Amino acid sequence: MKYRDAGVNIKAAQKSVKSIRRLARETFSKNVLTDIGSFGALYEMKHSYSQPVLVSSTDGVGTKLEISSMTERYDTTGHDLVNHCVNDILTSGAEPLFFLDYIATPKLNENMIEEIIIGLAKGCKENNCSLIGGEMAEMPDFYKEKHYDIAGFIIGIVEKKRIPDIKKVKPGDILIGLKSNGLHTNGFSLVRKILFGKLKLTVEDYLPEIKNYVGDELLKIHRSYYPLLSPLREIGIIKGYAHITGGGFYDNIPRTLPHTCSAVIDTSTWETPPIFSFLQENGDIPAAEMYHTFNMGIGMVLVVGSEQEHELETFLKSKNEDFCKVGKVIEGEGKVELTGGYDG
Amino acid sequence: MKYRDAGVNIKAAQKSVKSIRRLARETFSKNVLTDIGSFGALYEMKHSYSQPVLVSSTDGVGTKLEISSMTERYDTTGHDLVNHCVNDILTSGAEPLFFLDYIATPKLNENMIEEIIIGLAKGCKENNCSLIGGEMAEMPDFYKEKHYDIAGFIIGIVEKKRIPDIKKVKPGDILIGLKSNGLHTNGFSLVRKILFGKLKLTVEDYLPEIKNYVGDELLKIHRSYYPLLSPLREIGIIKGYAHITGGGFYDNIPRTLPHTCSAVIDTSTWETPPIFSFLQENGDIPAAEMYHTFNMGIGMVLVVGSEQEHELETFLKSKNEDFCKVGKVIEGEGKVELTGGYDG
Repeated sequence: MKYRDAGVNIKAAQKSVKSIRRLARETFSKNVLTDIGSFGALYEMKHSYSQPVLVSSTDGVGTKLEISSMTERYDTTGHDLVNHCVNDILTSGAEPLFFLDYIATPKLNENMIEEIIIGLAKGCKENNCSLIGGEMAEMPDFYKEKHYDIAGFIIGIVEKKRIPDIKKVKPGDILIGLKSNGLHTNGFSLVRKILFGKLKLTVEDYLPEIKNYVGDELLKIHRSYYPLLSPLREIGIIKGYAHITGGGFYDNIPRTLPHTCSAVIDTSTWETPPIFSFLQENGDIPAAEMYHTFNMGIGMVLVVGSEQEHELETFLKSKNEDFCKVGKVIEGEGKVELTGGYDG
Repeated sequence: MKYRDAGVNIKAAQKSVKSIRRLARETFSKNVLTDIGSFGALYEMKHSYSQPVLVSSTDGVGTKLEISSMTERYDTTGHDLVNHCVNDILTSGAEPLFFLDYIATPKLNENMIEEIIIGLAKGCKENNCSLIGGEMAEMPDFYKEKHYDIAGFIIGIVEKKRIPDIKKVKPGDILIGLKSNGLHTNGFSLVRKILFGKLKLTVEDYLPEIKNYVGDELLKIHRSYYPLLSPLREIGIIKGYAHITGGGFYDNIPRTLPHTCSAVIDTSTWETPPIFSFLQENGDIPAAEMYHTFNMGIGMVLVVGSEQEHELETFLKSKNEDFCKVGKVIEGEGKVELTGGYDG
């Protein structure tokens, strides 16, 4: 018996490493000291920060992976993953330095791996982040055919005094919402139950209500807010960033609030994209549950002092960003209150 | 329909986060600036390095996870994972700074998650590493009951001039082998095929040949070589470290060799632990395949110049380490040659 007979193919893994190396190299900054393939990845800490703080985060893309398997499109989830991680560290004001990935498959399929890495490399390029290393695990019996799991790890850096300080958030501060690009990467277990379980749709179906094919709509890339907001990191006018992911508005906005403040969000200030209304109606989902699960069209909420509001809005307009003033900070106890006929 | 009906339980996730926070906090160094639960984890870069290089690595524990599920023991794989990652960055001479984990389960089971984190925290404490963040993904339909996947991500740091330089390795250098603690974390797909597929054993079976229960033998913790070797990092006498993992001797030792050198390993210089002979005989595995898949009792091979051999050996003896001089570097082209009746 050989290791290959047990379903594990080291030769195929080595072949994949070659193609990964080529794709990853294109993302390398000058601080990367090694190629992919050594035991550890080396990144020289050359920087101009006086009190540097490393900001790290790890994430997966959840059961959005199932859509990737159903459509056999593997080049989007890696991009989702990088963007999700980038947004998470951006909430601490960090710029991305480098990224590592973990990919687990039932059987090493070189084309699938290459597609996944293409997505990761796209995300890394978009965010000026080096794809410095990764692990491919071939796990026969763990995953169904065409299935895989993927996790990402990001390291960024921020000047200590530029880390948003929750204690500076106060009643009267303004909440600015930035548009999402569809569902991003959360709520997919519920989405799948409604679209494929209840409605018996397929990824090939066209939905006139959302003017899109099911697969294309669900695989839209999680938007990264770093390219837009990066110039503001130096200025330091943003007091808090809430990345609207799992837990929706209710769980993520409080992460930017001190215990003495709450947030009021007026849901009539932006138009909820049709995919969310479609899910709500067809899934018979209470409105509160919608805002507890999905981003509802707003992927990032910024907290800004009322005195800086104009400066932020001028900046966003100069970037042609279609933002909304979605609410404000009030006295309270770290809660989120929704107004604006949000259950309509 | 609610998100919970789709099999995802955010409340349970929040409860788990509390217990994780408690366990993780015990591992925090003074450089950790935040608790688990913010979007990103903050680590202040206070250090005494003049040219710091960050060394990162990511890994899983492969299908050793299956043994964890079979025995319903979840507190060992996290420890394996940390130790594996620590060894990987130690090959660049790095000391660990912090660690993040990704855990994916079919259904969030608080006890299972807590056990996993207990293992991670043990590993982090052993290696003086802060468990700074992580992600729990609840993925209904992706994993079988009692199954899970786990990936780890480590960041360490090394002085640039202390990174082992492959170009300094030359013919005549000595290879010192350090003992493993059993199978560590690779080759488990093959192990399972032989023990559970062919021999129809269970994890409860006692094997007189190895004087151990199958489950206990297979779950032995992947040894970390950092606590032993950490004092040598400053001295800089080790020219190369080969962590013997997937790909065994043949794929890992060449990673420490320049293209102009090969390695000769005399397999008679140490006693192969009985689990390996048992697998070889019962799986009818060619000897070359054994050394291409398993660590065969040697989990780390150090390359040392012949003039430093005595100093290294004196150090290892002072630590009561049972090491072996397993071979030497010769002129060649980056290959590994085994001698010593290794197919016996």
